[in-house]
Amino acid sequence: MKMRTVFDKRNISMMMDLYELTMANGYFLQEQQASRVAFDVFYRRNPDNGGFAIFAGLEQILQYLEGLHFDEDDVQYLRGLGLFDERFLQYLRSFRFTGDVYAFPEGTIMYPNEPILTVVADLVQAQIIETELLAQVNHQSLVATKANRIVRAAQGRSVSDFGARRAHNNDAAVLGARACYIGGVTGTATVSAGQEFDIPVGGTMAHSWVMYYEDELTAFRKFAEVYPDNCILLVDTYDVLRAGVPNAIRVFDEMRAKGIRSKNYGIRLDSGDLAYLSREARRMLDEAGYADAKIVVSNSLDEYTITSILDQGGRIDSFGVGERMITAKSDPVFGAVYKLCAVAGPDGRFEPRIKISETVEKITNPGLKQVYRVYNQEGKAFADLIAGQEGIDEDAVRTGLVVIDPVRPWKKRLFRDCTVKQRQQKVMAGGVRTGEGPSVRQIAEYVRRQLEQEIWDEEQRFENPHMHYIDMTAEYYNMKMAMLEDKHNG
Amino acid sequence: MKMRTVFDKRNISMMMDLYELTMANGYFLQEQQASRVAFDVFYRRNPDNGGFAIFAGLEQILQYLEGLHFDEDDVQYLRGLGLFDERFLQYLRSFRFTGDVYAFPEGTIMYPNEPILTVVADLVQAQIIETELLAQVNHQSLVATKANRIVRAAQGRSVSDFGARRAHNNDAAVLGARACYIGGVTGTATVSAGQEFDIPVGGTMAHSWVMYYEDELTAFRKFAEVYPDNCILLVDTYDVLRAGVPNAIRVFDEMRAKGIRSKNYGIRLDSGDLAYLSREARRMLDEAGYADAKIVVSNSLDEYTITSILDQGGRIDSFGVGERMITAKSDPVFGAVYKLCAVAGPDGRFEPRIKISETVEKITNPGLKQVYRVYNQEGKAFADLIAGQEGIDEDAVRTGLVVIDPVRPWKKRLFRDCTVKQRQQKVMAGGVRTGEGPSVRQIAEYVRRQLEQEIWDEEQRFENPHMHYIDMTAEYYNMKMAMLEDKHNG
Repeated sequence: MKMRTVFDKRNISMMMDLYELTMANGYFLQEQQASRVAFDVFYRRNPDNGGFAIFAGLEQILQYLEGLHFDEDDVQYLRGLGLFDERFLQYLRSFRFTGDVYAFPEGTIMYPNEPILTVVADLVQAQIIETELLAQVNHQSLVATKANRIVRAAQGRSVSDFGARRAHNNDAAVLGARACYIGGVTGTATVSAGQEFDIPVGGTMAHSWVMYYEDELTAFRKFAEVYPDNCILLVDTYDVLRAGVPNAIRVFDEMRAKGIRSKNYGIRLDSGDLAYLSREARRMLDEAGYADAKIVVSNSLDEYTITSILDQGGRIDSFGVGERMITAKSDPVFGAVYKLCAVAGPDGRFEPRIKISETVEKITNPGLKQVYRVYNQEGKAFADLIAGQEGIDEDAVRTGLVVIDPVRPWKKRLFRDCTVKQRQQKVMAGGVRTGEGPSVRQIAEYVRRQLEQEIWDEEQRFENPHMHYIDMTAEYYNMKMAMLEDKHNG
Repeated sequence: MKMRTVFDKRNISMMMDLYELTMANGYFLQEQQASRVAFDVFYRRNPDNGGFAIFAGLEQILQYLEGLHFDEDDVQYLRGLGLFDERFLQYLRSFRFTGDVYAFPEGTIMYPNEPILTVVADLVQAQIIETELLAQVNHQSLVATKANRIVRAAQGRSVSDFGARRAHNNDAAVLGARACYIGGVTGTATVSAGQEFDIPVGGTMAHSWVMYYEDELTAFRKFAEVYPDNCILLVDTYDVLRAGVPNAIRVFDEMRAKGIRSKNYGIRLDSGDLAYLSREARRMLDEAGYADAKIVVSNSLDEYTITSILDQGGRIDSFGVGERMITAKSDPVFGAVYKLCAVAGPDGRFEPRIKISETVEKITNPGLKQVYRVYNQEGKAFADLIAGQEGIDEDAVRTGLVVIDPVRPWKKRLFRDCTVKQRQQKVMAGGVRTGEGPSVRQIAEYVRRQLEQEIWDEEQRFENPHMHYIDMTAEYYNMKMAMLEDKHNG
């Protein structure tokens, strides 16, 4: 076996669960491989009991689908497992993904149980892409959603991603930085994320800089010499208030005496009580005449610690957030799933499929569907609406449309004077992308705009947020209920 | 900017925090780049309040150090940031890592605050590798440690990694599967991990297989046709006890009637109350004459749920463990750090460096060090011992050596009739590996052997485990105390 090193080309095609391939081999042997099917990606629960999540990872999914292939090494490895028919292995040799993909635009605010991405493809093709699709959606949506919570907690102060060293390996660091930026951070410390995705990069200094020199004052002076315009000094190596801040002020005095007016200078605190230390440091800097010196803090921050530090009067300009954002520590699993929802019959019409479960939340929404976001006259999104494949007459939400809340089906809801936007767009046709995706900056801007203009504040609070309505048209709801009854009694 | 796709070669060299490079540029401009320094990797707290952790990720670190380089694209990107001196950028062009690395063998049981890996290198070289070293150690040690907890909870039943779809992206899935195997799982569902690391792969079927066919019984029959010898049927798509298990039994009856004796057959449960359902399913299978049919369960398992399912008499042969193992959900951050511990003076002798902190646990162990594991006459490891660079006379632990517990320095401890093993080995000299690393299977076997033979059961329990002693020689302890006093009063 050829040993790959960490620098080699990635073999994303083989990033799948073995059962995708054993099922594919089974379908192939039963000559079902070209049967047309549809799978939905959806999730069941917002992380951290939040009011919504942010859809991220679509760009990497489309790159994967365009590049998916099996090379000689792959086929040889699979042959060695002794599980696959030789005809199936030959078939994999020329395998390409030629299906259609419908998805929410990347960065769309999303809610549980609605199909955020739908694959319509030949059975084997649709089956074997499951794992990679889910890994991308789950990881990037998780981190984008978490980052957005932290950014909201910072109340307009800048938040940077400092998480690479605690990320779950390289992809988690680099694509995690991408997701953080989509969620609203101002930049990342991770250089390759900056390079790959054109995200602003930044950073200060480590304790090693201070420890390398004979003493802290010398270390600060040396740094100020090299970076007069990016002079954020880390003040907690020995003693913040007795040594670090006084030494920093001394260096700022020396810079001022030389006539240097720094564009960006200040201190960073990385340990201790950040509320107390930042207030004291602010006072000392102000008294020394450095009211424009910045205070950056880091050390196990998240939306909860940031909120409490700010509640206690912490005087902070910028948060460097590491492990708790890049791993989404308080709730590190995003549970999106990929479920078969329809199979084309001999006439080409899609017949719905449903999964029933001992766990009620695990019952799926059958069939091909359309998802609409419903806006009131102020442009606020107050519900999403799931309809059958045929969609709705968009005029009806203006004149009056009765819909059903599937959680409380006795409570009909009336949409009137509303507008709707269809949320899924065709992003891949016959295995080819329908257009170039937006840049990461554009996606981040799209997130910001939705949260400012469309999404209720009540859905954005941390404590007990309002739960967005996911309604169904009466036709769709009745079809689902009929299937459930049929399966239950069948 | 060239857009990379998910299939392109990885650019691991740029996987670093920007401050590594800005500090490096500063050191370079001050002509300190060739100053010889030492950095230690250590961690401060065992995940999940456990008694130990497992060191993993060394192989990828050594591959990274051997391959580290900057290409034209990288230099151009860095130039565009406007932060770096042109001479430094030229220097990066021919940059290679030429330092020495000392490390615990991969798979070694490790404890907080001991140096598990030490880099001795030129200052700039040692600085810029920080982020990638930590990302590897943190991710792989985290997952290996978590997997081992889950394997211990399963009490000899097999545990497989089913986590790829909920991992924090591709590396987390693939290198996470590697780490799970080091921690003791019997296999993984992740195909590329099997391919890259020669780990056994396995899997069953998804709900989509059952949903694709007209009904469950047909789906099971079709599967049994293709995989008579790997026939684990997923029985929870519609109704486990009323439909799934009876349908499975019917298919097993049909196989038996055809004279097929399956090598591996049974059912998988993926929802509902796994203790209750597995007991009932076992009873039904036994009554039908299928006492050797296996019961595999999955669905949000970890060491806690497995323990409670087994406590309640769950009848389970094999656990498929996904999200809670691959993300180490209950404690998903492994906090290893990389700290400067020594700087060579003009005479080449290394002078110790220490970091003091507002937070006592963040005070570092200064200087070059040796770490010994100390064994009693039964071969049980009852303490680790930190000594200065000169090490100890290994005979002394046989005849009598007084050591200091730094947490309770008033309690001297006497080592007598002991043996010791030095834990750090030189794994890289002048940037070249000293030998080939062990295979993943060998590392897993090494973990198993230590836990069976060397590590006290008292350190392996989940609740309030015994905390391993990390002692210091009197010389080393006194040197550290003198530095602290000096810094405090200096």
